[in-house]
Amino acid sequence: MVQMSCAEHPEENLAKAIAQIKKLANEGAQIICLQELFLTPYFCYEENLAFFDLAETIPGKTTNILQEVALETKTVIIASLFERRAAGLYHNTTAVIDADGSYLGKYRKMHIPDDPGFYEKFYFTPGDTGYRIFETAYAKIGVLICWDQWYPEAARITSLMGAEILFYPTAIGWEDGEQAHINQEQYFAWQTVQRGHAIANGVPVVAVNRVGKEQGTTFWGGSFVANSMGSIVYQAPFEEEVSHIQEIDLAESEQYRRVWPFLRDRRIESYAPILKRYIDE
Amino acid sequence: MVQMSCAEHPEENLAKAIAQIKKLANEGAQIICLQELFLTPYFCYEENLAFFDLAETIPGKTTNILQEVALETKTVIIASLFERRAAGLYHNTTAVIDADGSYLGKYRKMHIPDDPGFYEKFYFTPGDTGYRIFETAYAKIGVLICWDQWYPEAARITSLMGAEILFYPTAIGWEDGEQAHINQEQYFAWQTVQRGHAIANGVPVVAVNRVGKEQGTTFWGGSFVANSMGSIVYQAPFEEEVSHIQEIDLAESEQYRRVWPFLRDRRIESYAPILKRYIDE
Repeated sequence: MVQMSCAEHPEENLAKAIAQIKKLANEGAQIICLQELFLTPYFCYEENLAFFDLAETIPGKTTNILQEVALETKTVIIASLFERRAAGLYHNTTAVIDADGSYLGKYRKMHIPDDPGFYEKFYFTPGDTGYRIFETAYAKIGVLICWDQWYPEAARITSLMGAEILFYPTAIGWEDGEQAHINQEQYFAWQTVQRGHAIANGVPVVAVNRVGKEQGTTFWGGSFVANSMGSIVYQAPFEEEVSHIQEIDLAESEQYRRVWPFLRDRRIESYAPILKRYIDE
Repeated sequence: MVQMSCAEHPEENLAKAIAQIKKLANEGAQIICLQELFLTPYFCYEENLAFFDLAETIPGKTTNILQEVALETKTVIIASLFERRAAGLYHNTTAVIDADGSYLGKYRKMHIPDDPGFYEKFYFTPGDTGYRIFETAYAKIGVLICWDQWYPEAARITSLMGAEILFYPTAIGWEDGEQAHINQEQYFAWQTVQRGHAIANGVPVVAVNRVGKEQGTTFWGGSFVANSMGSIVYQAPFEEEVSHIQEIDLAESEQYRRVWPFLRDRRIESYAPILKRYIDE
């Protein structure tokens, strides 16, 4: 996990991320997840046409560089980028690169937020890749992005596809001037709902968040890893950059799912109402 | 909430529950939730034909009595009972009685567990009522039962039907001789996944659990109330009976759902894979 703050220029952030990837690889890391939109400041703080210049094709310039880094370090790299798909068509997309440097594919953020300071609906068309898993050298991983974190449906479907770990690159923070108890409640809601995904699906969850103050928001860091029972096995600090390796024992999920076999008892014939917006009788 | 231990004879447990309902009503309670199968010891600890004698029709003997109590106390009563529907056809069912004593209907537990000490598949046919909400005098409530707690689908559908509070009568505990850290992890997994339902749906959750040692299980009490952001606003002790009134401000959900409008951004056209048992490509 690379929890970092971002400077103005993409080259600087890319250099920082690559340095951390190399450091973590030296220390034994196998799968490295960068935070959401790690290449730039969080530009969605306002609706600004000029910021579309920050987008790139995927695969493209940045994935080419990261493919070399992946090959050199023998790590899987999960890289969240601003994707330009066509003129006037952009996505919030995460690329996955395998440990041999090959480009495995991408996931386009399905759930797009929009609230003051987070004007993502202006920039990103909701994803049309559907949910994705990636068979990497070290594990079959599922990747979801930030606002997806709040949707049990996304975690469930990705888990049913066979994900052995769920990764969430993310950029979430506290609004300037908000009360401390509200900030605390928001952080724990964010963490708790994802721990819930871990539990309901019997799958470890890794959330990697941006840190540092940008415009009116203090990104809260607080990246974490929950095991398949939702226990926090690692929690990053709120106010500093940190790169961390967390060992995950994939065999644990087998044991957790035997003890409490939630997948066995799903009533799939009763879940169709989930496909409705609301159930107004 | 009435968190209680159960004696051998149903009359004794019914008398205890009614005494607590009257006490809570005197103190201002409006909606009273009893724990799962509050009328009897947790008989599913073994597969025993004789225990089918404990079942009754719903509505029937017990709901008749509780209807009188509800009318007298002007409380809504949520009563989990062992339902005999026909010879050889039994359910784990919760009846809801309105504050004017009228019988509002029942919900039959959809997800049925089965593990050592909890042989519920022997006794209970999985519910066929689907998910239900009940328009009571004080709130529109959703009722789910115990093992349903682990299924985000059940909480989501019930919330989409307009539930303003989710109630979970439950009977869950620790196996004799298990290690303390595993017991702790299990309790928090149980609580956390339900807090996750509160957060994802913006709805308060009330879980009412049995307490006390029966056969090889110590029911862990620990009933709780989470607000619409998943914060614990009340937590009962693990080892004693307790009756508690928790005030819930229904207007809070409106505010929480405005700040983080998860329902706005659901990608319902992408959720169909949830209707599958597993997604084996």
